[in-house]
Amino acid sequence: MKKVKIYVTLKPEVLDPQGKVIMNTLHTLGYKDISEVRASKFFEVTINSDDEKYIKNEIDEICDKVLANPNIETYRFEILSYPNKSV
Amino acid sequence: MKKVKIYVTLKPEVLDPQGKVIMNTLHTLGYKDISEVRASKFFEVTINSDDEKYIKNEIDEICDKVLANPNIETYRFEILSYPNKSV
Repeated sequence: MKKVKIYVTLKPEVLDPQGKVIMNTLHTLGYKDISEVRASKFFEVTINSDDEKYIKNEIDEICDKVLANPNIETYRFEILSYPNKSV
Repeated sequence: MKKVKIYVTLKPEVLDPQGKVIMNTLHTLGYKDISEVRASKFFEVTINSDDEKYIKNEIDEICDKVLANPNIETYRFEILSYPNKSV
């Protein structure tokens, strides 16, 4: 059994309205030194396999089909031993 | 100028309906070996300061006030040099 951390981010050239709203909120609150905010998604997936090659293939499929929109997002992931205590 | 990566995750004891829906979708698609999915948020913030102590204080405030709900979420962050090419 392994835990996989998957990070799905907008491609750099894609506008991020959610990040822009957060940045405007921070400026309103007085945090004027924040010059950019990009909002992304992050998933922790537990998979019942210890075969890293198999896991890599399956996570690639899952990202392409479900977790990421390949037109506007990229993803990366890391495979960890289970259990892992960090958030 | 520094880039800060901020990870906001639900506390382990808090139910994650979004993660549950994703897991059910994956099972429907045939990925039966996925036993848990937790969905979280991930922010990349650019800040016009190089003082790590100042940045740490400001990011703690921003997380507590805007990015995370301290009742149900925890956060961690890492301060990187700018520019950083990784997603």
